[in-house]
Order: sequence, then structure tokens, then C-alpha cells
Amino acid sequence: MNLILLYTADFLDPHHVRIRDRRFQHMRSVHQARIGEKFRVGVLNGMIGEGEVIAICDRQIELCVHFDQAPPKPLPLQLIMALPRPKMLKRTLETIATLGVKDLWLINSYRVDKSYWSTPILRPEKIREHLLLGLEQAGDTLLPRVHLRKRFKPFVEDELPALAHDTRALVAHPYQAQPCPAATNTPTTLAIGPEGGFIAYEVEKMQEAGLSPIHLGRRILRVETAVPVLLSRLFPLES
Amino acid sequence: MNLILLYTADFLDPHHVRIRDRRFQHMRSVHQARIGEKFRVGVLNGMIGEGEVIAICDRQIELCVHFDQAPPKPLPLQLIMALPRPKMLKRTLETIATLGVKDLWLINSYRVDKSYWSTPILRPEKIREHLLLGLEQAGDTLLPRVHLRKRFKPFVEDELPALAHDTRALVAHPYQAQPCPAATNTPTTLAIGPEGGFIAYEVEKMQEAGLSPIHLGRRILRVETAVPVLLSRLFPLES
Repeated sequence: MNLILLYTADFLDPHHVRIRDRRFQHMRSVHQARIGEKFRVGVLNGMIGEGEVIAICDRQIELCVHFDQAPPKPLPLQLIMALPRPKMLKRTLETIATLGVKDLWLINSYRVDKSYWSTPILRPEKIREHLLLGLEQAGDTLLPRVHLRKRFKPFVEDELPALAHDTRALVAHPYQAQPCPAATNTPTTLAIGPEGGFIAYEVEKMQEAGLSPIHLGRRILRVETAVPVLLSRLFPLES
Repeated sequence: MNLILLYTADFLDPHHVRIRDRRFQHMRSVHQARIGEKFRVGVLNGMIGEGEVIAICDRQIELCVHFDQAPPKPLPLQLIMALPRPKMLKRTLETIATLGVKDLWLINSYRVDKSYWSTPILRPEKIREHLLLGLEQAGDTLLPRVHLRKRFKPFVEDELPALAHDTRALVAHPYQAQPCPAATNTPTTLAIGPEGGFIAYEVEKMQEAGLSPIHLGRRILRVETAVPVLLSRLFPLES
């Protein structure tokens, strides 16, 4: 946890918060929080600053907080991913939140196992939990939006063309593809397939929606490696 | 498995192999291998090509193989990492093999828990197993070398200066650091710290050994995300 995320319910007044949950446990057991100690804090979907411990007991901690910094810049990206298997989904939600993705569509695809759609990790509160972990890791406060699309065709035909319009629109696909373009801050739509890749029909439908296939060279990457690699290649480092 | 790795013991003659282990199980159960079907194959530390199934039964599979392609280019990189915790170590070994790292030093650091050094994953046969999975994923054949260094100071004082000499020598460190340099194919030495980072003393020792601190922007990344991000930023895509 590189940032303590604060929620409206934590505030006693604009400069004082009281925390009792997992965050309190973490500050006490991992950081051995003491009176006078300072922590990096941020308001969910708001500003970042510093919190000084002013009271601590076995049940709760109180901080005096002030905020003076905007959160890191979001990536100008609409990320579309074939739903990964549950174990990888958890890590993916954390990673995309850490890397600054703010809009994620999880979609169906021929190679997505039907059972993946019934995982408890797709419940809104579990999705939120993993996104928050990712934000706390990065030191970010802006919660990503996650959109579930269980049917491939209606998404690709009815929604994707409008999403892709006027953006750098790409689908990562190792075959019949151009090399990954240079890093720019252009608004971008990027689709990433499941393990084994999108099937030819799906790539065709995405091309009809305006996406161009790009590849990452000869090495075939797992989805969890492809995401950070693609985002690092497509966008410059925030200065 | 995007490539079936072949070992000397598999060869009946230079153009025929017989496989009985995990790879056979995978070809049969995941790919439903049949006579006449073709698989991408590669000789461990050797060439890549194609293998055609010429016999299959409940116990083994035989392929007729030929080789016509060099493996993907290695990254010109000496990667030094603080030993991650066991679960992350497994994934890290697979990821670095997939991404084309050929020399990995796992070193001690103040924030490396002592217990991590006793994990069974550090046994040579387990290290090899995870590296092979990474190569099979990437479609590569060149096995990385992994060097264990349980003592920080002797490594940094006696070995690191010679490793770093005449290379682009860097330590990833979020504080008092330059932004990550541009992607080039320059021979590079890169050190990555543990969760929580190297301590100030360790960064100083690495600077004395010739490494310059670089950062990746405002977001703090977990080690498993930092590795693909750093390698993607430091090296151009293989064409």
C-alpha cells in the first residue's frame, strides 16, 4: 500500500479521518503506525496529500489530513479484453488499475471458457476490491470503470465502432499484423484476446469496427505480460 | 505451449523424436494431436522448425522433425533482481524467459525475507522447469542462466563493477532518479529491487558499482509489473 485511499465515510470533518478496516490493520501491523507519523493519503476519485497520525488504539486510527496534489494522469485508453480466467482476472484488474487504465471492457470471445463468467470475482464489490488494491499500489485515486459484455457480436457491431471512432484503434494479434506503433499520448482503443488469441472471425469483425491488427514481435506473450508490455510501448512515460 | 521444446534424449535420429512426458500429455489432451498434424518444435538451445505427427498411442508420440529457423534474439541484458517471494518468483522466472532475458542474478537485499532463500523453487530443477515454461510460451529455445547470490555486499563490491563495465548500467529506483532512457539495443545491466525497494545504502553501493538510478514516473509498480514495463521501455521491439 503506497497510498491510503480515503472514502467519504472516513471523514469526521474536511481535515480529520477515522479508519477501522483493512487499511487500519495494514497501517498498524505492516507500518507499525505511531502518533506523529505521516502517511501518503488520497481521496477516492480526488486529490492526494499527507495524513498525520493523531490518535491510535486497538480499534481505529485517526489522521489529520491535507491534500495538495492531483492524482497521476490517466492513460488515454479504452481497453477491451477477452475475459481472462479467474486467477488471472484478479491480477489483471490490479495491474490495469496500477498502470492507469480508466475504462476496461471485459468481453466474450470464442476461446473464453463459459464458466469464467460465473466467477465471484466479477461481482461489483470484488471487482472494486481488486481495483482499489491496484490504485493503492500505484498511488492513484481515480477508480477505473469496468464494463461487462457477455455477448461478442452485439458489442463489436453496436458499441465498438463508436468507441473506436477518432481514436488510434488497435487489436493485438500475432498474425497478419503491423508492428506496434510508437508511443504517443493519442486517445487509443486497444483490444487484447484470450489465451490462444481471438479467432479469425473475431479479428475480422474488429477490423470492420475500425481496429487495425498489431503484433509485438516473434515472442508470444501471456495476457498478463502482454498488458504491461503493450501499454508501455503505446504510451510515453508520464513525466 | 506455443513451441514443443525437444531435448537430446528425445531424438531417435536427426529427424525423428519420441516424446512421453508432460509434453506428450499436453499435445494429446490440449491439442488432440493426430497423425499428420504439424507442431512448432525447437531444440533446447538450438534451432526452431516443424514436427509432423507420424505415430501416436496411449504412451507416446513420434514426430518427424526439421529445423530451419533461428530462435528469437536474446535481449542484450544482464538482469539483477532482489529475490522475490516464492509465488512471485515462479511467475518472474517464466516472464523473464518469455521476454528474452538470458542472464538473471537473484540477489539478497535488506527487504528480502530470509525465508525466501529456502523455497524449493530455487532448486536447479525447479528453476529450469519454470524457465522452460516461459520459453515454450514465447517460442524460444535459449535457456536463461540463473545465478544465485545470497550475500549482497560481496556481489555488489566484487562482481557488479565488472558486469556493469561498458554497459548501460541502471538501477530502478523511484527516488532521486532520472526518467527511464529511450529504447535501444545497447548492452544493458539493470537492477530491480524487492517490494518496498532497495534501501538507500544499497542504492549507494550500486551507484559506486557504476549503476545510475532511473524511475518509471509517478506510479509505483509491483515487481511483476515493473519487469515487463522496464524491458519494454529499454529495448526496441524485435522486428
